[in-house]
Amino acid sequence: MNTIKVGVVGTGYIGMVHLEILRRLGGVEVVAVADANKGLASAAAAKFGIGRVFRDADALIADTDVEVVHDCAPNNAHFDINANAIRAGKELLSEKPLALDSRESAGLLELAEKHGTLTAIDFCYRYYPVVQEAASRARRGDLGEVRAFMGHFLQDWLFYDTDYSWRLDPRVAGQANVVADLGSHWFDLVQFITGQKIVEVLAELHTCLPRRRKPKAGPLSFGAGDAGESEEAAITLDDYASLFLKLENGARGNFTTCQVAAGRKVDLEIQVFGSRESYAWSHVHPNALWIGHREKANETFYESPLLQTGETRKYATLPTGHPLGYHDAVFNLFRDYYDAVAAKRAGKPYRPAFPDFRTGHEMMCVIDAAVRSSKSGRWVEVG
Amino acid sequence: MNTIKVGVVGTGYIGMVHLEILRRLGGVEVVAVADANKGLASAAAAKFGIGRVFRDADALIADTDVEVVHDCAPNNAHFDINANAIRAGKELLSEKPLALDSRESAGLLELAEKHGTLTAIDFCYRYYPVVQEAASRARRGDLGEVRAFMGHFLQDWLFYDTDYSWRLDPRVAGQANVVADLGSHWFDLVQFITGQKIVEVLAELHTCLPRRRKPKAGPLSFGAGDAGESEEAAITLDDYASLFLKLENGARGNFTTCQVAAGRKVDLEIQVFGSRESYAWSHVHPNALWIGHREKANETFYESPLLQTGETRKYATLPTGHPLGYHDAVFNLFRDYYDAVAAKRAGKPYRPAFPDFRTGHEMMCVIDAAVRSSKSGRWVEVG
Amino acid sequence: MNTIKVGVVGTGYIGMVHLEILRRLGGVEVVAVADANKGLASAAAAKFGIGRVFRDADALIADTDVEVVHDCAPNNAHFDINANAIRAGKELLSEKPLALDSRESAGLLELAEKHGTLTAIDFCYRYYPVVQEAASRARRGDLGEVRAFMGHFLQDWLFYDTDYSWRLDPRVAGQANVVADLGSHWFDLVQFITGQKIVEVLAELHTCLPRRRKPKAGPLSFGAGDAGESEEAAITLDDYASLFLKLENGARGNFTTCQVAAGRKVDLEIQVFGSRESYAWSHVHPNALWIGHREKANETFYESPLLQTGETRKYATLPTGHPLGYHDAVFNLFRDYYDAVAAKRAGKPYRPAFPDFRTGHEMMCVIDAAVRSSKSGRWVEVG
Amino acid sequence: MNTIKVGVVGTGYIGMVHLEILRRLGGVEVVAVADANKGLASAAAAKFGIGRVFRDADALIADTDVEVVHDCAPNNAHFDINANAIRAGKELLSEKPLALDSRESAGLLELAEKHGTLTAIDFCYRYYPVVQEAASRARRGDLGEVRAFMGHFLQDWLFYDTDYSWRLDPRVAGQANVVADLGSHWFDLVQFITGQKIVEVLAELHTCLPRRRKPKAGPLSFGAGDAGESEEAAITLDDYASLFLKLENGARGNFTTCQVAAGRKVDLEIQVFGSRESYAWSHVHPNALWIGHREKANETFYESPLLQTGETRKYATLPTGHPLGYHDAVFNLFRDYYDAVAAKRAGKPYRPAFPDFRTGHEMMCVIDAAVRSSKSGRWVEVG
Repeated sequence: MNTIKVGVVGTGYIGMVHLEILRRLGGVEVVAVADANKGLASAAAAKFGIGRVFRDADALIADTDVEVVHDCAPNNAHFDINANAIRAGKELLSEKPLALDSRESAGLLELAEKHGTLTAIDFCYRYYPVVQEAASRARRGDLGEVRAFMGHFLQDWLFYDTDYSWRLDPRVAGQANVVADLGSHWFDLVQFITGQKIVEVLAELHTCLPRRRKPKAGPLSFGAGDAGESEEAAITLDDYASLFLKLENGARGNFTTCQVAAGRKVDLEIQVFGSRESYAWSHVHPNALWIGHREKANETFYESPLLQTGETRKYATLPTGHPLGYHDAVFNLFRDYYDAVAAKRAGKPYRPAFPDFRTGHEMMCVIDAAVRSSKSGRWVEVG
Repeated sequence: MNTIKVGVVGTGYIGMVHLEILRRLGGVEVVAVADANKGLASAAAAKFGIGRVFRDADALIADTDVEVVHDCAPNNAHFDINANAIRAGKELLSEKPLALDSRESAGLLELAEKHGTLTAIDFCYRYYPVVQEAASRARRGDLGEVRAFMGHFLQDWLFYDTDYSWRLDPRVAGQANVVADLGSHWFDLVQFITGQKIVEVLAELHTCLPRRRKPKAGPLSFGAGDAGESEEAAITLDDYASLFLKLENGARGNFTTCQVAAGRKVDLEIQVFGSRESYAWSHVHPNALWIGHREKANETFYESPLLQTGETRKYATLPTGHPLGYHDAVFNLFRDYYDAVAAKRAGKPYRPAFPDFRTGHEMMCVIDAAVRSSKSGRWVEVG
Repeated sequence: MNTIKVGVVGTGYIGMVHLEILRRLGGVEVVAVADANKGLASAAAAKFGIGRVFRDADALIADTDVEVVHDCAPNNAHFDINANAIRAGKELLSEKPLALDSRESAGLLELAEKHGTLTAIDFCYRYYPVVQEAASRARRGDLGEVRAFMGHFLQDWLFYDTDYSWRLDPRVAGQANVVADLGSHWFDLVQFITGQKIVEVLAELHTCLPRRRKPKAGPLSFGAGDAGESEEAAITLDDYASLFLKLENGARGNFTTCQVAAGRKVDLEIQVFGSRESYAWSHVHPNALWIGHREKANETFYESPLLQTGETRKYATLPTGHPLGYHDAVFNLFRDYYDAVAAKRAGKPYRPAFPDFRTGHEMMCVIDAAVRSSKSGRWVEVG
Repeated sequence: MNTIKVGVVGTGYIGMVHLEILRRLGGVEVVAVADANKGLASAAAAKFGIGRVFRDADALIADTDVEVVHDCAPNNAHFDINANAIRAGKELLSEKPLALDSRESAGLLELAEKHGTLTAIDFCYRYYPVVQEAASRARRGDLGEVRAFMGHFLQDWLFYDTDYSWRLDPRVAGQANVVADLGSHWFDLVQFITGQKIVEVLAELHTCLPRRRKPKAGPLSFGAGDAGESEEAAITLDDYASLFLKLENGARGNFTTCQVAAGRKVDLEIQVFGSRESYAWSHVHPNALWIGHREKANETFYESPLLQTGETRKYATLPTGHPLGYHDAVFNLFRDYYDAVAAKRAGKPYRPAFPDFRTGHEMMCVIDAAVRSSKSGRWVEVG
């Protein structure tokens, strides 16, 4: 069997995660990497024995051997890279958020549909086995009607005013920081577990630290401020956001995200309250799903190939009780995606269950609505 | 030393808790009880050897031996009982919420100040030792400037449409159900820990179950619906509420409360994020305070007479590590209150640190603002 | 109805707990207290309006009004106080361990049976509602056959060599410290939950800190060493003990207790593994019972008057989800005991489910067997 | 740079884990696999594009391109494979336990030392970042003198009598089942964290289920009994074991392991109590280290490249707060090992910090001592 040939654009932190996980898959081979920082790309290539190194994404896209492109560049490069890859006939797995705003993401979605591209977007949190289990149970009716939902995504990565990230710069990140970067993951979880779309939001975006020290050497993903020279920068994007949300069926929910919460690292939590039972999941203990009951003891469902139900069993990739981590969630998403790529290439039918550019566009619409709502102080419809 | 003579109005669930806790205090004696349900009052009196039993609150208030009145009646009786007790020169400990609305509570506050009444209100959650510890640390500067705060108070007591409570009836409960009953506790915690007032709210009150079965026998506190005959009732008050809040210093926060969350029993949680550290406290594990840090390991502070700092030590009433419960929080509040009563009676100075009618009125103002905001869909100033 | 008249011997820490809890009961009145430290006794009497204060236990026992004696004195006084109270025709609730050794406890048991005394011993941990639930489920067959069990009881109360307690002095405490003081609670839980006796033990008692500073002012229960003058003392009793145990049905178990475990306060944990399911309970979260399953999600059972099954419902004394604490466990034991006292006095039948002197004696036999086993390095039969 | 060429013997569950993790490393290439089940080996080779497939381990070892052999065969094959690989001049990473008994493991150790082989053994639990952190802190003195230690390793994989594993067959597994399979991991953790050897044990090995249904199709690692035909088999090896242990400095500890504990999946826990602080780590929440204190709040240290100290930082391979799992622990061990392989090949100095055949032999000695102690009922010296 011929391996599927992959090119990865962007070899920073998340690009290296993609490379490692791609290596764990069978039948997939990375043949090219590209990064504006050519040294970074060369190091990645040397580490994994990848033959071709480009400074420029377009050159990688032009490589006819490359069948699938992974877009791991910053937000403001997503549109061009994704659009060019689609036009070049590549399959495409993009990092999130999909673009700078919902106008861009609508364009990408239309383009991908026109070209029949097999797209995916890296909303990896839904790929923890017990999150899949929650969604599966909800779909088969265990949850009942969704009545309410809530959650948060907290970090302390921007706790000090000497912390800085390119995500705070609207030219690179778009109109929002934390509600886009972290919020989009959570919104995807809500829709995935409940099977319903977010249709309306009322949001408050807030900047707790309106002045920060920005490294002169150029913005890193997350840079400790004591490294090198810095200059004062006015911050306009959100490091705190809180939202009221409505689903299609009228269910109410709310979500808060904040990156100045000392002691919270990647503290994503979601709770869904249905008419029959409840679910709660926290990324801090990512292998356990809490199932709440009124009439009997609550349950803690731990990922396990023996206990997972239906199709979710395949995501519990180790014997019962061996904890899975973030890498394994990404692995599960990639494996689903490449199963579809292989099926498409073989002319076989496939049913893409992974998040795709439609999902990515929906999340951009929620983010856009949140930004507009925060300005008006009013409920805003999504999309 | 003469004991302090107490009369308790209302001998339902919470009244019986008051009686038990009053018995644990030294120097305090319950001499009278009153309840519209005279049988209930008589049973309470027989159990604890209390001499006088009244059907009518006013008769108890008229008893010249009674120095302190405990108001454990439903919300809609609070104003009259409290006002009459104040006018009769009694000291007064009232259940919450203080009245049906902030107009009533303003009247009670004014009256109490005019008569120099020593008032208290049973916001007992702040009396867990580690909540006191959090407030004490915040006051001495450990927390730094408050930047954000959040939390929730979830229950499943109204999960089924056959669940009913008098708190769902606006004639008895006032303009709000869950944001008043549960929310007021949480708002008090925010103000107590941060030392700042809630100045503005944007609220969404929602009724997840707009139709319920109401017991014909009369509304209990929380009645399982299968007991006896019932009739359908339209529900207009909230069983879900979500709020954005602002403190005096501009810090943002949010709070959600819901009584249809299957599996959540008395799940109150509060998190406060400061410029130096963070605090989180959950009523599910009420003896532990989480202290969050960016630069070092997070801490779990467990109540202990050895570890509590400053004046909070006295609230850890058992040797290190013996868990305290809800009863002990109420005990701590009562003990503080009766220490002040004893000091006042002895003509000694005292500094009431417990929540009083000013606190009770402030909470009514937050509730009123939430109700108004929910109607307008806009931010509303408190007070 | 006439109240039941009680006299409490010993008004140190645990005596004061008894007094507070006795006050919470209906129909019970403390009429006398005694303590070798008369000032201590007088303060207790003044606090709760108790009329009679004795320096001497015998004087209290001789008081004909006293119907029930609570023995809250140190271990080495238990035998005489208990024996005298029995001979004087009193009912008797004693602190644990019941005596200095199993010879003494056998004598007390025989004496109590001869006099028809209604005895109880304060093994209060089994009176948390979910511990009762575990035992109830095991009795009705949910657990299946016990296969294995394990647990620990850890503290850091003797962490520093400047920590000292009278329990380290064999003249006051008997042949063992920690395996007697803490172990006896745990052994009682094993027997209570499984319904089986401990029949054989292999034990290692060890002294981690063989030299300590002993306060010259006299040994307190647990004294921080920086208070006052001290002298060096050689320690021969155990501050660490580990045991293998066998039950009647051959099930194996093990237990470890240690008082030099920094950070562990009252960390008692028990796990029982049956042929159908498992139970785990930790005193750190005393209101939750873990129920383990092979074939389905594990459960967390939280105390609740709605969820507790059968007769255990009465121990969940607050509405669902209000946490109970150590005081409430003691309250539940006392209430069961005084219900029996009232029934006996009224000539009604009663079925004492609480731990009595037989339980107390059985625990002494386990402790004695552990001491002998530790000396021989061999398995030793209990009793 | 030339990649390091690797051959993997055994392509069952753990062999596939090795293959995936080897793929994640840079500079390493798997060139050959071998398995007695040739179909299994071929599938693995096809998945990852591995060129050479052998049925026989010796053929793989004879392949001159192979520089490093991974031994993922069952216990009873370890000696021959490992010895042959050493004699053939290969570097060698073996699964645990190292051999059937300590005589075999002594032989392997001697042989490896004679040939200067760079050996490693897959005690992967110590490679969670916070376990490394605990050991690092202990080494620099934070823990103080070790006073006591304890822990367990519980599973329910053999809960039903229809569960069977080749580890229950002494011809394949050696003299012990659970104390060897699970215990060896725990013993390694004790020595790694405390820096001290286990010098004496008193053990009780017990068989809770002496009769099981054994699949006729041949023993799997862990087979659910309902698959295919089975026959009754008498079980002589342990499914429960409890041990008292002593370290070089006289510190006491104990350990329990059991595979019939319903609801426990891979529940490994270790606690170490020192004269300055305590550590506790549970594999159920593998990214958190509990640090216990007497005089201040306890800490929870979460893996993080920002917070890990000294050389342990490199094991926290994702940004702060992204949970790592079992795969990542194995990855960390492999990476350390291959760094050493690369250094050795380049003639550079290296300091192997990973567990090697000396560690593997020490663990075999503890297992042997446990088996002998269980037969005699006496303390037995290790080694």
